[in-house]
Amino acid sequence: MDTIDSSDVRRRIQAVHDTMYVLSGKWKISILASLCFGVKRFSEILRDVDGISGKVLSRELKDMEMNLLIKRTVLNTHPVTIQYEITEYCDMLIPIIHNLSEWGIKHRKKIIER
Amino acid sequence: MDTIDSSDVRRRIQAVHDTMYVLSGKWKISILASLCFGVKRFSEILRDVDGISGKVLSRELKDMEMNLLIKRTVLNTHPVTIQYEITEYCDMLIPIIHNLSEWGIKHRKKIIER
Repeated sequence: MDTIDSSDVRRRIQAVHDTMYVLSGKWKISILASLCFGVKRFSEILRDVDGISGKVLSRELKDMEMNLLIKRTVLNTHPVTIQYEITEYCDMLIPIIHNLSEWGIKHRKKIIER
Repeated sequence: MDTIDSSDVRRRIQAVHDTMYVLSGKWKISILASLCFGVKRFSEILRDVDGISGKVLSRELKDMEMNLLIKRTVLNTHPVTIQYEITEYCDMLIPIIHNLSEWGIKHRKKIIER
């Protein structure tokens, strides 16, 4: 990274903080990671994200919808189907989540080798 | 992202969790973000990371050194100088942190426009 003045360094570090705040909490990034692999129904997200309860998942989905991270679509099927997807606004997060996953896989190997 | 079977989705989500665990806590990612801009002394990191105290910074640096995230070098100057840098192992985190920063800057604009 090019050398830049300290006020810009602080602004960029604050921006990292802002993103981490949006992605904070135990479940948000796992839900986003699940939706990185495509449009999903509630039950599919529940299956993907180890350890989350239905009650917590519905609260998190409401919060993420309010924060423009995900989009909820109600399909006119019988019975009604509700599906969730990452909003266009959040597309930029997909490579971040992909990189986080890659690093995590390498990190786990490294820790096991120690 | 290509469609992949659900056990691999869960493995990748777990890997995202592992990375977020390593980067968790209020300060780690900000300290890494500061070091993304080059080798730094203790006082420089303290200036970069808004709100952190000297005591907390030294504890975090010890923990990050133990987890192979950063390297501490003692220079034979008068007085002695100690500098910190990101380990090669962590180089892959730099683009992640850079993307987190970019997204945070856009997110802040979006929230202000709402």
